[in-house]
Amino acid sequence: MAGRVVLVGGGPGDQDLITVRGAAEVAKADVVLYDRLAPNPIELARPDCELIDVGKIPRGEFTPQEQINALLIQRALTGKHVVRLKGGDPYVFGRGGEEALACMEAGIPFDVVPGITSALASAATGGVPVTHRGLTQGFTVVSGHVPPGDPRSDLDWAALARTGTTLVILMGVLNLPHICHALLEAGMDADTPALTVERASHPDQRVLRGTVSTIAEACADANVQPPATTVIGRVGELDLSGQS
Amino acid sequence: MAGRVVLVGGGPGDQDLITVRGAAEVAKADVVLYDRLAPNPIELARPDCELIDVGKIPRGEFTPQEQINALLIQRALTGKHVVRLKGGDPYVFGRGGEEALACMEAGIPFDVVPGITSALASAATGGVPVTHRGLTQGFTVVSGHVPPGDPRSDLDWAALARTGTTLVILMGVLNLPHICHALLEAGMDADTPALTVERASHPDQRVLRGTVSTIAEACADANVQPPATTVIGRVGELDLSGQS
Repeated sequence: MAGRVVLVGGGPGDQDLITVRGAAEVAKADVVLYDRLAPNPIELARPDCELIDVGKIPRGEFTPQEQINALLIQRALTGKHVVRLKGGDPYVFGRGGEEALACMEAGIPFDVVPGITSALASAATGGVPVTHRGLTQGFTVVSGHVPPGDPRSDLDWAALARTGTTLVILMGVLNLPHICHALLEAGMDADTPALTVERASHPDQRVLRGTVSTIAEACADANVQPPATTVIGRVGELDLSGQS
Repeated sequence: MAGRVVLVGGGPGDQDLITVRGAAEVAKADVVLYDRLAPNPIELARPDCELIDVGKIPRGEFTPQEQINALLIQRALTGKHVVRLKGGDPYVFGRGGEEALACMEAGIPFDVVPGITSALASAATGGVPVTHRGLTQGFTVVSGHVPPGDPRSDLDWAALARTGTTLVILMGVLNLPHICHALLEAGMDADTPALTVERASHPDQRVLRGTVSTIAEACADANVQPPATTVIGRVGELDLSGQS
């Protein structure tokens, strides 16, 4: 009898920002595959649950996605209730779609429990709502992993400069100078507010504020390191942090 | 002694898709202000907690935002622990920024607990990841409440047609014909996959699939009613639903 797989979004990292349903799924699991961005499953799982860290293999490299898919399916085929516990949301830069497809191809029943994406949690932690009445009617979240103009990029940065939405850039620390340059070249107002949130919601979180013209240099000067999220748009005028 | 205000994102509607922290804040509260999109606070709050439904006033109208802000502050000034429980995420089309500003202006300490935005949960429920390796490196979420070209619109729909990100449209049922027309006029590929998820995650959820050229008519034919979310982009090629 086949088991099942549940892809659970663990949220932005804090142990209690997983959903009630997600925590319940981990508590029921026979096997949990987790990685370094997910909440610690030890506090959530049954004592006899098999915990597999797929964030690292012994030599310090990441477990290839194909191997994670194979583990999910192999354990489910032995009848286990398998949870894949991920940081953020499984379907937002989480490769959960690939895991879901692998389950479908293997005929394994699966389900998805959404999680809070780090993109939005980081902006909030930095004191900025991604939408705000009178400022913007939308937001865009992109990976900055591939620089503008790179043949591997699916994004049109000139269009991104002009949507009128708040732009949230993940994995963009290294390429931030290229990204801001591309946005300015495409006509974005040079005074558009921008902020970068480094290590969002960790005790050593830092928030740098500036504009699309200045934020890349500010990050370089402050030696900002990944993980960091940059938010560009009129909502950056607001600072709702530091009041609790 | 002043109390405090916590803006809690209740998630997309299911009672157990609130975060563990959000549920704990509701359980501690002296007062909860909630509306029809939030989880039912009766199951989460203390028996002696004051529950205020701000989603409706006696004549069936909504409570004006200014009145909600005033209630939050008035109760906090009497020393109460006040929770504002909202559907989705407070900072994503939730007017949480306005409530936070009102607290700041009144000198009331406040905090924000993020929630899962309905925009992303609806897409997932409809069987579509908003990002997928090889298909797109980002997504955009906009309100479709104001039609393209309307003077009240902050959005550039021609740019939105070309970003290369998945486009998620909330509150767009009425304007869907105008929106799809604007996207096609701006050069979006007429075969771009599209789907509309009506009443996401409710037992009577419906998912309609088509393309940016056909989805508006399909929704009209099926008499789709709000709340509904439309997802437009290459990720619409995927259908990861119905396997659990």
